[in-house]
Amino acid sequence: MTTEKHQLNVALVGYGFIGKAHSHAWRTAPAFFDLPLDVHMSVLCNRNSDRAADGARRFGWQEITTDWRELIARDDIDLIDVCTPGGVHPDIAVAALQAGKHVLCEKPLANGLAEARHMAEAASAAQEQGVFSLVGFAYRRVPAVALAKQMIQEGRIGQVRQIRAAYQQDFIVDPEAPLAWRLQKDKAGSGPLGDLGAHLIDLTHYLAGGTITQTCGSLETFIKRRPLPGSGVGLGGVVAGEGFGEVTVDDAAWFLGRLDNDVLASFEVTRFATGRKNALSIEISGSQGALLWNLEDINVLNFYDNTVPAVEAGFRRILATEPQTPYYAAWWPAGHVIGWEHSFTHEIVDLVEAIAQGTPPAPSFADGLAVQRVLDGVERSATTCNGAWVTL
Amino acid sequence: MTTEKHQLNVALVGYGFIGKAHSHAWRTAPAFFDLPLDVHMSVLCNRNSDRAADGARRFGWQEITTDWRELIARDDIDLIDVCTPGGVHPDIAVAALQAGKHVLCEKPLANGLAEARHMAEAASAAQEQGVFSLVGFAYRRVPAVALAKQMIQEGRIGQVRQIRAAYQQDFIVDPEAPLAWRLQKDKAGSGPLGDLGAHLIDLTHYLAGGTITQTCGSLETFIKRRPLPGSGVGLGGVVAGEGFGEVTVDDAAWFLGRLDNDVLASFEVTRFATGRKNALSIEISGSQGALLWNLEDINVLNFYDNTVPAVEAGFRRILATEPQTPYYAAWWPAGHVIGWEHSFTHEIVDLVEAIAQGTPPAPSFADGLAVQRVLDGVERSATTCNGAWVTL
Amino acid sequence: MTTEKHQLNVALVGYGFIGKAHSHAWRTAPAFFDLPLDVHMSVLCNRNSDRAADGARRFGWQEITTDWRELIARDDIDLIDVCTPGGVHPDIAVAALQAGKHVLCEKPLANGLAEARHMAEAASAAQEQGVFSLVGFAYRRVPAVALAKQMIQEGRIGQVRQIRAAYQQDFIVDPEAPLAWRLQKDKAGSGPLGDLGAHLIDLTHYLAGGTITQTCGSLETFIKRRPLPGSGVGLGGVVAGEGFGEVTVDDAAWFLGRLDNDVLASFEVTRFATGRKNALSIEISGSQGALLWNLEDINVLNFYDNTVPAVEAGFRRILATEPQTPYYAAWWPAGHVIGWEHSFTHEIVDLVEAIAQGTPPAPSFADGLAVQRVLDGVERSATTCNGAWVTL
Amino acid sequence: MTTEKHQLNVALVGYGFIGKAHSHAWRTAPAFFDLPLDVHMSVLCNRNSDRAADGARRFGWQEITTDWRELIARDDIDLIDVCTPGGVHPDIAVAALQAGKHVLCEKPLANGLAEARHMAEAASAAQEQGVFSLVGFAYRRVPAVALAKQMIQEGRIGQVRQIRAAYQQDFIVDPEAPLAWRLQKDKAGSGPLGDLGAHLIDLTHYLAGGTITQTCGSLETFIKRRPLPGSGVGLGGVVAGEGFGEVTVDDAAWFLGRLDNDVLASFEVTRFATGRKNALSIEISGSQGALLWNLEDINVLNFYDNTVPAVEAGFRRILATEPQTPYYAAWWPAGHVIGWEHSFTHEIVDLVEAIAQGTPPAPSFADGLAVQRVLDGVERSATTCNGAWVTL
Repeated sequence: MTTEKHQLNVALVGYGFIGKAHSHAWRTAPAFFDLPLDVHMSVLCNRNSDRAADGARRFGWQEITTDWRELIARDDIDLIDVCTPGGVHPDIAVAALQAGKHVLCEKPLANGLAEARHMAEAASAAQEQGVFSLVGFAYRRVPAVALAKQMIQEGRIGQVRQIRAAYQQDFIVDPEAPLAWRLQKDKAGSGPLGDLGAHLIDLTHYLAGGTITQTCGSLETFIKRRPLPGSGVGLGGVVAGEGFGEVTVDDAAWFLGRLDNDVLASFEVTRFATGRKNALSIEISGSQGALLWNLEDINVLNFYDNTVPAVEAGFRRILATEPQTPYYAAWWPAGHVIGWEHSFTHEIVDLVEAIAQGTPPAPSFADGLAVQRVLDGVERSATTCNGAWVTL
Repeated sequence: MTTEKHQLNVALVGYGFIGKAHSHAWRTAPAFFDLPLDVHMSVLCNRNSDRAADGARRFGWQEITTDWRELIARDDIDLIDVCTPGGVHPDIAVAALQAGKHVLCEKPLANGLAEARHMAEAASAAQEQGVFSLVGFAYRRVPAVALAKQMIQEGRIGQVRQIRAAYQQDFIVDPEAPLAWRLQKDKAGSGPLGDLGAHLIDLTHYLAGGTITQTCGSLETFIKRRPLPGSGVGLGGVVAGEGFGEVTVDDAAWFLGRLDNDVLASFEVTRFATGRKNALSIEISGSQGALLWNLEDINVLNFYDNTVPAVEAGFRRILATEPQTPYYAAWWPAGHVIGWEHSFTHEIVDLVEAIAQGTPPAPSFADGLAVQRVLDGVERSATTCNGAWVTL
Repeated sequence: MTTEKHQLNVALVGYGFIGKAHSHAWRTAPAFFDLPLDVHMSVLCNRNSDRAADGARRFGWQEITTDWRELIARDDIDLIDVCTPGGVHPDIAVAALQAGKHVLCEKPLANGLAEARHMAEAASAAQEQGVFSLVGFAYRRVPAVALAKQMIQEGRIGQVRQIRAAYQQDFIVDPEAPLAWRLQKDKAGSGPLGDLGAHLIDLTHYLAGGTITQTCGSLETFIKRRPLPGSGVGLGGVVAGEGFGEVTVDDAAWFLGRLDNDVLASFEVTRFATGRKNALSIEISGSQGALLWNLEDINVLNFYDNTVPAVEAGFRRILATEPQTPYYAAWWPAGHVIGWEHSFTHEIVDLVEAIAQGTPPAPSFADGLAVQRVLDGVERSATTCNGAWVTL
Repeated sequence: MTTEKHQLNVALVGYGFIGKAHSHAWRTAPAFFDLPLDVHMSVLCNRNSDRAADGARRFGWQEITTDWRELIARDDIDLIDVCTPGGVHPDIAVAALQAGKHVLCEKPLANGLAEARHMAEAASAAQEQGVFSLVGFAYRRVPAVALAKQMIQEGRIGQVRQIRAAYQQDFIVDPEAPLAWRLQKDKAGSGPLGDLGAHLIDLTHYLAGGTITQTCGSLETFIKRRPLPGSGVGLGGVVAGEGFGEVTVDDAAWFLGRLDNDVLASFEVTRFATGRKNALSIEISGSQGALLWNLEDINVLNFYDNTVPAVEAGFRRILATEPQTPYYAAWWPAGHVIGWEHSFTHEIVDLVEAIAQGTPPAPSFADGLAVQRVLDGVERSATTCNGAWVTL
C-alpha cells in the first residue's frame, strides 16, 4: 500500500466513442498498474447533461458538468483529458495549459495547421512551468508496437530505409451511404487523410526516429455526390434523406514522405478498401531486418532477422503477450490476448508516470504539430502542386 | 436511467489470477452493457487480507473478508462468485446454493467426479427455488464462438460429423522447470487433461449440441522427475530448489469422444507443444460446411461454406467485431478488437440477465458434471483399460 | 558434357494419375539436375494399349507394352517403376528384384502385411546383389520437409518429444457420393487409414528418426450406405447408379504411436474434414524448438526456436526456396515457388544418385514394411481390441 | 489420337533463366494439355553454342544455332520465342514478324518507348496477315489470377474502384552487394521500376479492364555507390572487385495510375523490402467485393464478397486448384498445388490455341506498349516533373 501517494484529479471533456474509451482506461489503469499517483476520476464534462450523467454512472466519475470552462476555473483539477471533436481542441487545451493543468488531447491535435502551432506553443510554455501535455496517438502504446520500437532502438533491423504504411477501411463503399458530417470539409477538415493518415505519420515518426520534411500526395473522391442525410441514426449517425449533396473531402489519399534521416515512407489511406475494417498496417524495412504490424491482429509483431542465414530466415510471428513484452507483465499469462482499448490504458499509465517523475511525456504537442505539418503538405501538394513534392 | 432496478449484491471468493479477471469483469459489465439489475460489488474474500484489500482498492469492492463462511451467513449477499482452487469449489458452492445464493463457479467444477455430482445435485435443488448457478466455461462467450454457435444452430454447416480440438501450451518444456503444485496429482488432480481438456470438452458439447457418452484416451508424462521447488517466485510461482521429485500428473493427453448425436470428436492437450502459448483450436466439420476457431486469434472465426461452388469455395476469415456480432454492439466499431478478458464480462452479462429473467443460465453445474464425467472416463481408459473405449 | 555416363533404362508400369506424375518426373529430373546416369525412358506399360500410347506420346517413352512380365524378361531394362494399384505391387516388384532390376514402388508398399513382408525380404536379398529399391513416400523430398529433417539432425529443435499429424480431405462429405472402389474394402484395403495414414507414419518415422512400436486406434464410417455406382465418370471415376451398397472401409481414423525413441505421435486421417482438400499437416515439438509443415502450403516451413528469448520468439515462416534449400539450387530464384509434382522429381534424382553411387536409397522396402506394420496394428486395435494399445 | 494435327515448329532464342523456364514449358504444355497443333521443339538458339547444346539435351530441342538470323531465314520455323535481354527484343521480334513467324516475346517488350512502339506497329501489321504475337506477362495465366479475372468479369466485385499493388524483393539490401549490370542504367534501362513494375501495370490493366492514362511517380536510390564487380559468380552473376562505382538505376519506385475507366491504382516496387523474396501482391477493391493475390502464395486467391451480411463476411481463402479452376483440369486433384513455372506452360497453351483458332492472343504487343508508356511516364514524372502528374 502506498498511502502517501499524491492525488491526481482528472476531468474528461467530451463523452463520445473516444471519451468512453478514455473513461474505461482511466479506471482500468490503476487497477492493473501500480501508478505513482493516486488517480481520482473527478469530473466528466459533456454538453448534454444526461449523457454526462450516464457516463459518470458507468465509469465512476464523481461529478458532471456541461461547461468545460468551469473545469479551467477550478483549482482542484490537475489534468484535463480532451476528447471533443477536433475543432474545439485548441480552445480547451490552451486554456487548460495556461491554467496550469496537464493536458491529454486526442488526435489529431487540431483541424488546421495554425491552431496546431498555437497549441504547441502553449504546450512548450507550459512545460517550462512543469505542466505537461500529450497528444493521443495511442497506437504507440500497443505492446507489439512498443516492442517494435525497442527492437529498432536496439539495432535489430539495422538502419531503417523504407516504410510502407496503409490504413484501409470500407465503411462508405456503398454509394447510397449518406453525406454524413465526416464527408463535409467544413466539419471534418479532411477525409481519411487526417482521420487515418495522422496515425500512420505519427507511427512513422516514432518508429523511424525522424521527421518528414518533404512530401507529395494525391487525393481522390470516388463518389462525388451522395444522398443528403435525413433524421435518425444510420451510417456515421445519419440515414439518407431527400436530395443530394457534394462530398467535399477525400475518399482516399496516397502520399510519400522523406524523413530527415533519409528514410522514405509511402502511405495509403482509404475508406474504399472493400473488406477492410480497421486495417492499419506498417512495414519497416532496414539493413538488418524488417518489422510488420497490423492493427486488426493487434498482439502480433512480425520480425524478419536478416542476420539469420537465408536458408532458414523468415518472418517470425511474435505473439507479443509475454511477461517481458512492454506493458504485459501487468496483464495476463502469455497467449491471453488483450484488445484495442488498452492502448489508452497504457497511454494513461505512461502519462501519469511522466507527471510523477517530472519528465515530459511523448508524443508532445510538438509531435502532433509535426504530423499536422505533413497533412497540410499533402493537401498542398495534391490541390495546388498537381501532386509534386513540397518542402515542409 | 433505470432508477427502479433491483440491486444484485455480489461477493467474490479467491483473488488470484482468475479472481482478478472476474473482478475486472464485474466492474466492466455494467459500464458497457445495460444490465437489468444494479450490480453492487459488495465483498471480496481472500485468505490473505492484504491481498483482499489490494484487490478491493483496485477494482472497487466495498468490503473485504478472509472467511467465505461469513458470506454465506449474510442476508445481503445475493450471488457468490467462486474463484478459488478447484478443491474448495464444492464446499463453497454447495453452502452458497443451500443458503439461497446464486453461484458462479470457475471451471472445472471440482477436482473429482463425486464432488461434481454432489454440486450438480445441489444446483438442481436450488434451481427449483429460483436460485441459479453457472460454471465458468467462459469461452462460450467469446463473440466469435457465440457466432459459431449461432451459425451451427441456423444449419450453416449442416449436420455436424466430426470435431478436431486441441489445447496446446509449452510452459514446462524445459526439464529444469521445477515440480510446481500443478505437477502434483494430490494438489492439481490432473495435468492438462483437466486444466485444458475441460475447456475443449465443454466447447464440444456446446457447439455440437450433444454429450459425449463414450471415450478412450491415453496420458503421457514426458519428464518424470523434476527439481523440487525452492522458495521465491519462478515458473508457476516457484523456482528450483534442491533435490528431485516425481511428476505425478500427465504432461499431455489424447482422447476421443463419441457424442449421443453421433459426432466423433478428437482431443489433444499438452504442455509440451513448443512455441504454443495458449493455442486452443477447434474445427467443426459438418455436411454443409465447417468452422474453425483459435483462442490465440480470438476475434476471428473461419467458416467454410460447402454450398458455394467448389471453384470459389474457401475458408472465410470472419473478423467477428461487427455491430451484429453477438455482444459486439456494446463495444467498439468494427475492426477494433477486444481481448481474452471480456469472455468473463460477457459471462457476467448473461448470468445477470438470466437471474433477472428467472431463466436458468448455461452452462449449468449439470453441464460441468458432464465434462467431469468425460475427464474421469479418459483417466479410467488410460490407467486401467490400456486406452480402450469406456462408456460413461 | 558427360558423354561417358552409364545409361539407365527405365520402364514404368501403370499409367494412372500417379503414373503420369512419375512420367513427368522422369523427364524433368535430368533437365534440371545433373544426374550421374543417363536416364532413358524406355518402356511405358499399361493394360490399356491406347492409354499407354497416349502416355508415351505425351512424355516421350520410347516403347509401350501391355504386359509387365515382358519387362521382367528383357535384359535391357535396368529399373522398374511400379505405379499400379497396391494389390499388384508385390508380384511386379518381387519379380523385378529377382530379375536384378532396381525398383521404385509407389506407396503403400502393399495392401497387406504379409505381402509387404515378402517384398521387404525380396528387397533385402536383392540389395546384397547391388539391386536397389525405394518405396515412394515422396513427401520426404519436398524441399521444406528435407530442410526440416536437416534442421532436426542439426539439433535445432533438440530432443523430439511429440508429433501432431493430420491428413484431412473432404471429397466424400456428400452422402450422395457413390460407392466407388475406394470405399470397398476388398478393393482398397482400407479407407484414409492406408491411403493418407501411410504418408503420416512415414513422415513421422523419417523426421523423428525412430520407429513406432506400439499403437492404438479407432476407425469410423460416418456414411454407412451409399448409392451404387452407375456407369460414366463421376467422383472417383463413377457416378451414382441404382440401389445402395455398404461402405466397407473407414471414413476417418485416429491413432497414436509410441516410437522406440520415446516420441509420442498422434494421427488423424479423414475424408470428412469439410473444406480441406489435401491438408497434410505435421507439427514436431522438441525440447529446443518446433517445426510445422502443411502440404497445401508446400514451400513453407514454420520453425519455432526455443533458444530465442521469449519476448521475441515466434514461429518463423521460412519460404524454403533459397539456393541453399535442399534441391532448390536446381530450380528458380528465391521466392519462385514449385509445386507438388516435384516431390517425384526429387525422389528420382535421389534414386538415380543412390544407384550410381551404390548406396541403398531410402525409404527402403523395410521402411515401407514398418509403415504397414503400424497400419495393421491400428486396424487390429480398432477392430479387435476396442481401441486399446497393441504392440507391433 | 489426333494424327491430322498441323505441326507448329518452334525456335527459342536466349537460354538464360527465362529461356530455361520457357523450354520446360514448351515441353510440358503438350504433355498435360490437348493442344490443337503438334508442337515441335525445333531449334534452340544461344550465342554460346555449349550452352545451347546443354539446353537442347536437357529439354529436347532438335537442333541448335548461335545466330538468330538463321531462324528468320528458315521456312520451316513457325514461331519464335524471344527470351533474350530486353535490348535485343526489337530486332528479333520485328524481323520474325516480318518474316511471317508468330512471336512470343518476354516482358518487358523493349527497354525504351520508341522501340516498343516500333514493335507494336510491326505486330499490328503482321496480325493483318494472320501472324500473331504475345508479350510474356505470364502472371495473367496463374490459375488464381485467371480466376480473379473471371470473377471480375462476372461482376462479383462490382465496379472496380481502387487497386493497391506492390512487388517487393530484397536482394540488394546489403550495401556490399556489387554493382551488377542490373544496377547500371545503360544496361538495364531501369531498376525495379521496369523489371517489377511492368508486371504490376500489366496485371492492373488486365484485371481492371482499362488503361492507365495519367501517372505520377518518384524514384529512390538508397545505396548510391557500390563496389565494382570483380570476376567470378556472385549476386546477379558477379562478386565484388576493387573500387566503387555509381548506381544509376532506382532501388525503389512508387507511382500512381489513373485508368480510363476511373480506377485509381497505387504501385510500389522495391529491392529493399528486407525479407521479401518475390512478393508481388495486388488488391482490387470494388463496389461489391475485393480480390487479393500474392505471388509467394501463388495458388491462393482471397475474395471478399460484400453482398454477404457483415456479421459473417470476410476474406475467403480460395485454394485455386479445383477441376473448375482455369487450367486446373489438366493438372492434379484439388489441393495438389502447382508452381510458378506453369504460368509459362499456360501461356504457351493459350498461344497455341489462339494460333490454331486464328484469334489474336493477349496480351498483345499493343498491351506491352501500353505498359511501356506508363513506365516512361513515371520516369518523366520523377525526373523532370518533381513527382507531379503527367498525361500519357
